[in-house]
Amino acid sequence: MSATEPRRIVIFDTTLRDGEQSPGCSMNLDEKLEVAQALVDLGVDVIEAGFPIASPGDFESVREIARTVRGSTICGLARCNEKDVDRAWEALQDAPDARIHVFLATSAIHREFKLRMDMDEIIRRAVESVKRAKGYCDNIEFSPEDAARTEPDFLCRVVEAAIAAGATTVNIPDTVGYATPTHFGGVIKNLVNRVPNIDQAVISVHCHNDLGLAVANSLSAVEQGAGQIECTINGIGERAGNCSLEEVVMAMRTRNDYYHATTRINTPRLVPTSRLLTNITGMQVQRNKAIVGRNAFAHEAGIHQDGMLKEPTTYEIMRPEDVGFTKTDLVLGKHSGRAALADRAKALGYHLTAEQLQEVFDEFKRLADKKKEVYDADIAALIEKRMNVAEDVWTLSGYDVHATGGGTPTVSVTLDRGGEKISRTNTGGDGPLDALFRTIEEITDTSVVVRDFRVHSVTRGKDAQGESTIEIEHQGRVYRGRGVSTDTVEAATLAFLNAVNRVAAGAGQPLEARPHDAV
Amino acid sequence: MSATEPRRIVIFDTTLRDGEQSPGCSMNLDEKLEVAQALVDLGVDVIEAGFPIASPGDFESVREIARTVRGSTICGLARCNEKDVDRAWEALQDAPDARIHVFLATSAIHREFKLRMDMDEIIRRAVESVKRAKGYCDNIEFSPEDAARTEPDFLCRVVEAAIAAGATTVNIPDTVGYATPTHFGGVIKNLVNRVPNIDQAVISVHCHNDLGLAVANSLSAVEQGAGQIECTINGIGERAGNCSLEEVVMAMRTRNDYYHATTRINTPRLVPTSRLLTNITGMQVQRNKAIVGRNAFAHEAGIHQDGMLKEPTTYEIMRPEDVGFTKTDLVLGKHSGRAALADRAKALGYHLTAEQLQEVFDEFKRLADKKKEVYDADIAALIEKRMNVAEDVWTLSGYDVHATGGGTPTVSVTLDRGGEKISRTNTGGDGPLDALFRTIEEITDTSVVVRDFRVHSVTRGKDAQGESTIEIEHQGRVYRGRGVSTDTVEAATLAFLNAVNRVAAGAGQPLEARPHDAV
Repeated sequence: MSATEPRRIVIFDTTLRDGEQSPGCSMNLDEKLEVAQALVDLGVDVIEAGFPIASPGDFESVREIARTVRGSTICGLARCNEKDVDRAWEALQDAPDARIHVFLATSAIHREFKLRMDMDEIIRRAVESVKRAKGYCDNIEFSPEDAARTEPDFLCRVVEAAIAAGATTVNIPDTVGYATPTHFGGVIKNLVNRVPNIDQAVISVHCHNDLGLAVANSLSAVEQGAGQIECTINGIGERAGNCSLEEVVMAMRTRNDYYHATTRINTPRLVPTSRLLTNITGMQVQRNKAIVGRNAFAHEAGIHQDGMLKEPTTYEIMRPEDVGFTKTDLVLGKHSGRAALADRAKALGYHLTAEQLQEVFDEFKRLADKKKEVYDADIAALIEKRMNVAEDVWTLSGYDVHATGGGTPTVSVTLDRGGEKISRTNTGGDGPLDALFRTIEEITDTSVVVRDFRVHSVTRGKDAQGESTIEIEHQGRVYRGRGVSTDTVEAATLAFLNAVNRVAAGAGQPLEARPHDAV
Repeated sequence: MSATEPRRIVIFDTTLRDGEQSPGCSMNLDEKLEVAQALVDLGVDVIEAGFPIASPGDFESVREIARTVRGSTICGLARCNEKDVDRAWEALQDAPDARIHVFLATSAIHREFKLRMDMDEIIRRAVESVKRAKGYCDNIEFSPEDAARTEPDFLCRVVEAAIAAGATTVNIPDTVGYATPTHFGGVIKNLVNRVPNIDQAVISVHCHNDLGLAVANSLSAVEQGAGQIECTINGIGERAGNCSLEEVVMAMRTRNDYYHATTRINTPRLVPTSRLLTNITGMQVQRNKAIVGRNAFAHEAGIHQDGMLKEPTTYEIMRPEDVGFTKTDLVLGKHSGRAALADRAKALGYHLTAEQLQEVFDEFKRLADKKKEVYDADIAALIEKRMNVAEDVWTLSGYDVHATGGGTPTVSVTLDRGGEKISRTNTGGDGPLDALFRTIEEITDTSVVVRDFRVHSVTRGKDAQGESTIEIEHQGRVYRGRGVSTDTVEAATLAFLNAVNRVAAGAGQPLEARPHDAV
């Protein structure tokens, strides 16, 4: 790097596309809108909102984000064919700043086994699709899928042709996460040196983390001239995920002396955005995750702590507050008002209407009566709870449990469906939760397999709220559910019922393949 | 790299030292012995077993590992002073193949704020300590702490002096996780080119993951001539953790064409070893963790799956079985015998005595009566359960719960202490679990704060076992607990009681600083 003025790197977030299509990360429309708004607040330049042709749900969410979210470019994905491109534009057209992203595989193995096309046909298809997209909008991105394994000469040809056809960004994906930093930097350098019209487009990179190298590969590309990084919150995405937004942004910021690159990211929003996504999907980040993990700034070892007291920079290269960790997150109590709650909800990344705020405030008052101290995580849990029960067919009116260690539990459950109360009492099952779940299955006439079940405390103390997430399988589709309560058993019951409600609403993710992409 | 014959890279695992000292990862003696044995099975060359002078518990565990674990070099850590070195050797002396690892900070910021020593004094102290250690054993490692931020000229001087004094390995730590791949490779290249006696020692690297670059930095060092990598299972360790063993090993194996480097690691042991550590510490890896995460080999997107069917290498750069994922983990049922159970326990990385096997087999038979299908994760949970209750003062004789949604629960608990049964009945609390926990506190006269509480299903199905982990605080110390049962409420109760038992046994980790290291 010879520049002294830092270059501005475009941050392209694909949490809602590559992230959302990975197992355990599917989101409904409301959830996607929350995430999109949080990405705007974070300062993301481009939001890849989905793959419109993949399903009606994908189309709907891209269209709603394009219609309502302001402050970032909204992007939609399309394969190189007319239907995909047309459908993408149909979803994107209401965005004031839209981008169509077309892709086509270029590596020998993909040409032979997946596409059965020769090099000339690939170039013809790529050019046709970029041109068609360009007919709709100026901002066009083209990706040669599996670029990292594509022959260098052919990659240069494809990229040159795509730019000549109108692509304003050319994205180089390491689709299978095979690249190493030096090799991947070399791929970018080769394009910079050999593609004659390369100055007419931004070079982008899209790295997968199969070997743990997505962040390093992206940074190596930036060193060689890449101007856009595709990444996701918490590094979610297919298999081992994508380049982690928080890591790549903080690496450039912390080592600005080395990379001479800046972004528009508002870094104190990193931790709240990470937590928002975790709250929505239930996909926990590990405790030692860089930047946003619970231990990321925990200096436990004694010698470290001694050095820390004398001079923080002996062991600290970033300050916790730079990425949004607050010294204490104790915020509200029973005397706190609506304005204070609205403030905290906003700080946590939520955008509530007046009506939603009122609902959450009522719940907050009930909670504050039970708990002395209401933490940020408690508030986030309350808001998520509201988001999840909005359209539920069945609600929990009451339950009664009698269980004895080693014995057979007896439970009663009363559910409400549109004002009608239905009760059932059962004896049997492995403990009270199993008995409660079986009883709900009977009342709702829904037979399911529990794939994953979790409960965890959201804050400290025996009076902490318990948050439960569940994943169930029903007729070949997977449904998530979540429940929150200071009563852990109730939280689990609510989570199960929430998932069953999603079965009723048809809001599941297929176990089988759906027509989806592969950048 | 010009060599055509792959170089053998030494894998130095510090899960039991740098990993164990991070929050949430403390282990007791039995647990450390299990992990050490699993590391031998994995093919790790050097096991850093602990920091003997840090605490009597650390000393004891290094000594037991040195006495009983065979097949890897056993290493102990020491600061550069006589007491530390003597104590390290005292712990290590029974190992047939021992290494003493001495360290001293060398960067300007550490010299000034932590050590208050000048350069000459640092060199004098390093040389004295290496020589003292050399008097005990031949195999000596020296680490200049914060080497990545140390002036290049001074680093060369220190390394040369340590080798001249007898160090056989010189380890270059990026203590604060500040390095970038190109920069860190340059640090290694500088040593290779400028230290006259560098050929008399192995160059090692020890990278932290604060910016998500630990694996890439380690690989960059290997490219420049490093011959040892320090790493941990699941990348656990201080703050954002250390270089992840599974990632760095699989990167070298998958890209052997590029790195020309091999290790002695038995890669199909990677997933079982990762799971063993997760089971022992309760520190979950995230679902999209590279190599060992649940999604690491999950190809969900449709186009991917289509390509996969035609030719796996279109999207798969490693085979799941290469890292130890099995196609199905359904293994045992009620008719399975002791030999089948012993086989699976061994495959999962456990080393059971005949007596332990019998205990686990009895539990297995009880479980198989309740569950049709017993999975690997069920077996691991049973074994962990046995390991945790071994020395418990209090055991759960029975409980009775009566709870109503929104109402006040009534619970009875009976605990056994050395044959004496103590019962208590209570009304109150936020739901049944809270009430059960409060009642146990009363009976055992132990007042605690719950820091973290989790329950999750270990396998699929409503009859799956629930595994609960809990972290409680009592008088400035933190205690972990774990419980397993097909009844989720019982699992949680057992976890709480297990943690209370650790309070009784004094088996906690201090909240405050302990005299610990900082490589």
